[in-house]
Amino acid sequence: MATQVLANWAVGLKYASIPQEVTQAAVRSFYNWVGCTVGGSAHPATTIARTALARFSGPPTSRLLGSDGSVDVDAMHAALFNGIASHVHDYDDTHLDTIIHPTGPVAAALLAMAEARDQPCSGPDFITALVAGIEAECKVGKAVWPDHYDVGWHITSTTGSIGAAVAVSKLLSLNASQTAHAIGVAATQVTGLREMFGSHTKSFHPGRAAQNGLLAALLAAEGYTSSEQALEAKRGWANVASTINNLDAEIASLGPAGRWEIAQNAFKPFPCGIVVHPIIDGCVGIHAEMKKQGIAAAQIEEVHADVHPLVLELTGKKTPKDGLEAKFSVYHGATIGLLFGKGTPAQYEDAVVNDASVVALRSLIKATADPSLRADECRLTVKVKGQSAPIVKHVDHAVGSLEVPMTDALLTEKFVDQCIPVLGEKRTETASAWCWGLEKQADVRRIKDVL
Amino acid sequence: MATQVLANWAVGLKYASIPQEVTQAAVRSFYNWVGCTVGGSAHPATTIARTALARFSGPPTSRLLGSDGSVDVDAMHAALFNGIASHVHDYDDTHLDTIIHPTGPVAAALLAMAEARDQPCSGPDFITALVAGIEAECKVGKAVWPDHYDVGWHITSTTGSIGAAVAVSKLLSLNASQTAHAIGVAATQVTGLREMFGSHTKSFHPGRAAQNGLLAALLAAEGYTSSEQALEAKRGWANVASTINNLDAEIASLGPAGRWEIAQNAFKPFPCGIVVHPIIDGCVGIHAEMKKQGIAAAQIEEVHADVHPLVLELTGKKTPKDGLEAKFSVYHGATIGLLFGKGTPAQYEDAVVNDASVVALRSLIKATADPSLRADECRLTVKVKGQSAPIVKHVDHAVGSLEVPMTDALLTEKFVDQCIPVLGEKRTETASAWCWGLEKQADVRRIKDVL
Repeated sequence: MATQVLANWAVGLKYASIPQEVTQAAVRSFYNWVGCTVGGSAHPATTIARTALARFSGPPTSRLLGSDGSVDVDAMHAALFNGIASHVHDYDDTHLDTIIHPTGPVAAALLAMAEARDQPCSGPDFITALVAGIEAECKVGKAVWPDHYDVGWHITSTTGSIGAAVAVSKLLSLNASQTAHAIGVAATQVTGLREMFGSHTKSFHPGRAAQNGLLAALLAAEGYTSSEQALEAKRGWANVASTINNLDAEIASLGPAGRWEIAQNAFKPFPCGIVVHPIIDGCVGIHAEMKKQGIAAAQIEEVHADVHPLVLELTGKKTPKDGLEAKFSVYHGATIGLLFGKGTPAQYEDAVVNDASVVALRSLIKATADPSLRADECRLTVKVKGQSAPIVKHVDHAVGSLEVPMTDALLTEKFVDQCIPVLGEKRTETASAWCWGLEKQADVRRIKDVL
Repeated sequence: MATQVLANWAVGLKYASIPQEVTQAAVRSFYNWVGCTVGGSAHPATTIARTALARFSGPPTSRLLGSDGSVDVDAMHAALFNGIASHVHDYDDTHLDTIIHPTGPVAAALLAMAEARDQPCSGPDFITALVAGIEAECKVGKAVWPDHYDVGWHITSTTGSIGAAVAVSKLLSLNASQTAHAIGVAATQVTGLREMFGSHTKSFHPGRAAQNGLLAALLAAEGYTSSEQALEAKRGWANVASTINNLDAEIASLGPAGRWEIAQNAFKPFPCGIVVHPIIDGCVGIHAEMKKQGIAAAQIEEVHADVHPLVLELTGKKTPKDGLEAKFSVYHGATIGLLFGKGTPAQYEDAVVNDASVVALRSLIKATADPSLRADECRLTVKVKGQSAPIVKHVDHAVGSLEVPMTDALLTEKFVDQCIPVLGEKRTETASAWCWGLEKQADVRRIKDVL
């Protein structure tokens, strides 16, 4: 029944029944996604795909975010390219219960298709479809978590196809039967192996998931049949791709009666593995403290970090050679926090990773695993030349956690940091204001005026 | 190593090193595929997809087989639509060891891309790429068979993506590293749940697999990275989607040193589940016998079939209501063999299934499971009014098995039966001759002249 219950729920979802904190979470998710997409638009994973597939685009309808402001492709390709770009810096949002990056597959498909239609799509209609897709995606993800991820599936895209299908079905006002068939066509395209992590194909996953879901909804809209038990059947999605199947319970927990998953969505302040975030957060704080005391980075004698054991297991790279390796280095994370007081994509550029002052400071950083610490907690001790007392800092919960969420101001700063190098200051400002105002937009297709 | 060994093998494969019986098997596979594709071109699963996705095609380069002879779309969509059409009647080829339908995903991608290029593709080059793709597909399929299928994966498409990627990589002359990355991008798109059997989505699978593989090769050609251990890694294709992983042994058994899988490819004489084939085969024989003796079908009093138990389990439907249900009816299979002396798609049309004389004869057919029979064996007894001795027939191996393969003449008959209703007699004849002559074609793109 899970597939049909989910389809019925999506069809019945109304903007008015979504609480304001949930629509606000949707706006924040969309806003963060646009910034990440613009920020990733010039990455080779995005540009190679554009080069390889340019000849296959139909008449252009949908904007490539972060292009020179006038590049449109068809909706199917916009979904792919924007989906890739949004994930390529590992800087997009995280549904912490499942580590799904939920907005990428759903928003990439939804925005591309909204732009391709002959009729306006209001902000509230867009938000309703976005919420429908993300709830579907996260609930089916929770139903198979953690086994599905442990066995090797990239859960962002395997669930993302389904989320995208639900969102586009909602946008197209498909009925419950069509929506169920769309879920089926999406579910049969199980895209994303974790083996691809560390390669371009990791960010291909949410892009392809966006296409899978968009394609599924378009086929179902014309009467294509799949299965109305695609998720829960004996040989359906959950049982084939996982040994855990809590679909009934998870689908029964959909909002408003149950819990809204999008309200649990977290935003990364730093473009690297989440386990490094407490260290960067703490070092950014120490940077501010040093500035206040007039201490230069060159005066640092030694840095010691006590961290959760997973930090060294996942990000123990001492001498990263480029930006990609630096994302897996807690030592680099500490260094940029201390040296620059920030951790944005700019601090992960190859030139910065290999800069002499960065390399020098990085060599002074020591880290020790302490199993008594939580994953989002750390302790830092910085010895400064000529000072007897070290600077110490305890980060209880890193910024970006649910306990210390990114404020709208921090999200804006993150957006601006990513967009200015691509769009320039003026266009970034306009785009930021437009995206924050999503709820009030009369026609989301007008995103072309600002991005 | 399996991924890299496979990639190296594909790069090194030369037409001259492929034995003549293998290139001939490739021609037969291609020929049969073209006929099935034309035959399925007007099915709703194909036409709905065309309607839903027409707006997303780039500049047309590649022929939709069975269209009015002049409909081209871009290669990506030709791969999808031709892939769907080729499988929609369940009439395409079968690699019996794995029940993969191997040609659909591979040929659909390969032909579409060959047509889209600015340079000729000779028959031998086309055949070499086709063999590379089908060998890759069947070897990785054997490596995970039967567990992968048992758990619920539609093995035709899950392996088909990989086969299509290898074939297109070969066509594009990618190097070994690029080919390995193409295999990776294809492997991460694990498309096809058996839950979709009985719906349009079943035939969507080989179509989407063709697109997955084509996309993978095109991305890899431009430098997109995935994993060079995509098939064998701990969280790679085989281990994630199966509990069996015999990759090393299977990849080591590639031809010419090992066994050519395409030479094991079988062709269905009848457009229905393979377990019904012995009964239709036997009844076609009895039809001929009755004709010789001047006995009309109306004189039949009773028909008794002894069959393998699986026949009744899978195809026990006594009163099928339409063509789709009739495919799962051993009773209908026997009826059309006796009445028409053939089992082509025409005998599975709804009107025939509900025709009064068909319904009447069908009600006279009895079947009994006999565990001592093989799946491709049956015994038939037909009592005729006014005759004391019944007509009996024992089918040892059904036509279309490896023991009694479809002859070129039977393949031609099958091709013609499928193509005439779509192309008319003259175009069918030209197309048939062109396809049989594949090996001698100077430029496969010229398929446009005949199809």
